[in-house]
Amino acid sequence: MTSDTQALAPEKLVRAIAEKARAASRRLACVEPKVKDTALLAMAEACESRKAELARANALDLEAAKAADLPAAMMDRLALTDKRIKDMVESLRKVVLLDDPVGEIWDARVRPNGLTVARMRVPIGVIAIIYESRPNVTSDAAALCVKSGNAVILRGGKEAIHSNRMIAEIMAEAGQKTGLPEGSIQLIPTTDRAAVTALLKLSEWVDLVIPRGGRSLIETVVKESTIPVIKHYDGNCYIYVDERADFDMALNIILNAKTQRPGVCNAMETLLLHDSIVDTFLRRVVEALRAKGVEVRGSARCRATVPDLVPATEDDWRTEYLDLILAVGAVGSLDEAIEFINQYGSHHTDAIVTEDHSHAMAFLRAVDSSCVLVNASTRFSDGGEFGMGCEIGISTDKLHARGPMGLRELTTSKFVVFGAGQVRS
Amino acid sequence: MTSDTQALAPEKLVRAIAEKARAASRRLACVEPKVKDTALLAMAEACESRKAELARANALDLEAAKAADLPAAMMDRLALTDKRIKDMVESLRKVVLLDDPVGEIWDARVRPNGLTVARMRVPIGVIAIIYESRPNVTSDAAALCVKSGNAVILRGGKEAIHSNRMIAEIMAEAGQKTGLPEGSIQLIPTTDRAAVTALLKLSEWVDLVIPRGGRSLIETVVKESTIPVIKHYDGNCYIYVDERADFDMALNIILNAKTQRPGVCNAMETLLLHDSIVDTFLRRVVEALRAKGVEVRGSARCRATVPDLVPATEDDWRTEYLDLILAVGAVGSLDEAIEFINQYGSHHTDAIVTEDHSHAMAFLRAVDSSCVLVNASTRFSDGGEFGMGCEIGISTDKLHARGPMGLRELTTSKFVVFGAGQVRS
Repeated sequence: MTSDTQALAPEKLVRAIAEKARAASRRLACVEPKVKDTALLAMAEACESRKAELARANALDLEAAKAADLPAAMMDRLALTDKRIKDMVESLRKVVLLDDPVGEIWDARVRPNGLTVARMRVPIGVIAIIYESRPNVTSDAAALCVKSGNAVILRGGKEAIHSNRMIAEIMAEAGQKTGLPEGSIQLIPTTDRAAVTALLKLSEWVDLVIPRGGRSLIETVVKESTIPVIKHYDGNCYIYVDERADFDMALNIILNAKTQRPGVCNAMETLLLHDSIVDTFLRRVVEALRAKGVEVRGSARCRATVPDLVPATEDDWRTEYLDLILAVGAVGSLDEAIEFINQYGSHHTDAIVTEDHSHAMAFLRAVDSSCVLVNASTRFSDGGEFGMGCEIGISTDKLHARGPMGLRELTTSKFVVFGAGQVRS
Repeated sequence: MTSDTQALAPEKLVRAIAEKARAASRRLACVEPKVKDTALLAMAEACESRKAELARANALDLEAAKAADLPAAMMDRLALTDKRIKDMVESLRKVVLLDDPVGEIWDARVRPNGLTVARMRVPIGVIAIIYESRPNVTSDAAALCVKSGNAVILRGGKEAIHSNRMIAEIMAEAGQKTGLPEGSIQLIPTTDRAAVTALLKLSEWVDLVIPRGGRSLIETVVKESTIPVIKHYDGNCYIYVDERADFDMALNIILNAKTQRPGVCNAMETLLLHDSIVDTFLRRVVEALRAKGVEVRGSARCRATVPDLVPATEDDWRTEYLDLILAVGAVGSLDEAIEFINQYGSHHTDAIVTEDHSHAMAFLRAVDSSCVLVNASTRFSDGGEFGMGCEIGISTDKLHARGPMGLRELTTSKFVVFGAGQVRS
């Protein structure tokens, strides 16, 4: 982040950053919990005491955004208000309170030859986070990586480059002063796209890439990367209301999942009703949703009962609206509901409302999603709500981490073996 | 595997196989343990009762290999002798005895709002295994995938195509007859390279690719695949003998790790001695190794003590000999040993011999390898030796699975949430 690294060609620049991160990661893996916590507290304090600098850097981004005529919603995401800086600082302090996952030994067993074989939780190593506009991702991601013993390479959106550089600088400085290895937190200081392309080939120094942003960002990363990627795709979440359900409970869950915060990935997008309850329950659902301003789109079966629904097309079953729109369909059985969700859903979060125990258990087992709920709103699919503390995202991948990713998901394990001179015969 | 699928273009062929595997995987995920075990036993029996057919198919491969003048070692790997068929059948029966990992619920916690949040172990889905010459990989891999509830797509080496087709056919048939979904076990019936290239793009239907074979096979798969890959790279294993060590124990471990089976990935390739023990211990080591036919290559420091060692070059520290050759170097401290191993080793399996507890613990923590041992031979790094039952390989990756991969590593998890009508406020 000094002027001489900025002057390098993007390939050389990221190579230098990645090598430095690898060296830092080896030392960071062995740093005591107390040192990491002291560093995180120092970072929080530094963000607070240097908030005037943060605001000035952010003003540069906001000016550029205004000049480029960026949409108001984007301007809003970019702005580091006093309140947001305070929240950022609070988040850093919250990470300190989480348990340090590194060094945990579990699954120990004594073998017949007397060897003790166990697993030890260790950091992954070097993690690259590639994200879009919100500058608070910079501090959140850096804090979670440091706490879990990983060196982090940050690459934010170009709109936030001044803010991100300042946040990373403040955190890296505070970390180094309190004993973290140099290179533990680095931000790619250029907005050159070639830097990302080059970074994604450095599998010798970078162990994991986490892209956070829209589908096209993630797809580009997957295509270009030779480093393992953990993906956070959309949430096209379903709720299925079973034949035997508590309808008051179902209605309450439906309203919450659709309207409490419609613009997020764990909001419900499609509702499936068992065929036998369409005639008795659908109108009540539609009226309650409409009272909250929701547009309801229905299948032919649903429109036979509530004729003034907007017709739903095949596309609707696949769409993440992130808006006050809901698609409603009917299914003839639990199995049909499961098949429908596995086919059209996005394998993120789905729920069943039922009073039938074996239906609940079958749904939990068969729906192929990162989070499956019985009799609760999909909105609970969240690291904080699950008691995992802060999360770095919600993985829609099946490997390594699935669902909300907390500190533990930023670690890996090794086998450790305690012997007394054993040899193999 | 019928003649009409063989007539398809490779892209269409693998697409049809992958779609069928996905459909099978959804049903297989919910199959009772007893059904899977019955199927595995039926497969073992079928391999036994149809061993004449197996031998005939194998004879075709052996003839082709002879005509192509393949090296004797490869011919040997290819041959399905009576003994090997018996071992294959035994392996299938052993998988039956392993615990079924699917459906396990763990890490359950009750949240303040009364929700119970837990994790459930579920199959990954569809796993493609791409491997080289040994036909027994076909049966081993298929059995482990079925037991863990995954549909499997097998792609063996072209030299073994007749044997592999016959094994897969026997197993798939026996499985279907005993209740496994059709498509649970499929082998790509063509040897066309284009089939693999096409398969590696089918991330919608295939969840994981495991290449088993040499470095160039693995690297090609990583480069071409948009599906997550778990890699099993070489084992350039180190042993470090510390200043305070039991030298009889160290010598015994060194001899075992180098000579008990030199051609495998967990054999030792490099020995590091603390500088202070070179003069007293090295000659004894060299003489014992030479008595076993080992060529010892030494650093300048080692040659100062034992002048007739073959000089070791920088390359030697990075080489997996898989042969009766050993490189020996000296280091000035524990930290130097750790740094050396992290720099030149392959992050597979490394060991320390020491009587110093804090050195042992520091080594375990800091050496960045999938398996780290104290006072034991590197040869123990193995799923069977660790009590994991059969293994599908030893992952040198850090994500998802690291070290020996057993049944549990062929599963993933989902979050399951048990509510009573909770909504988010």
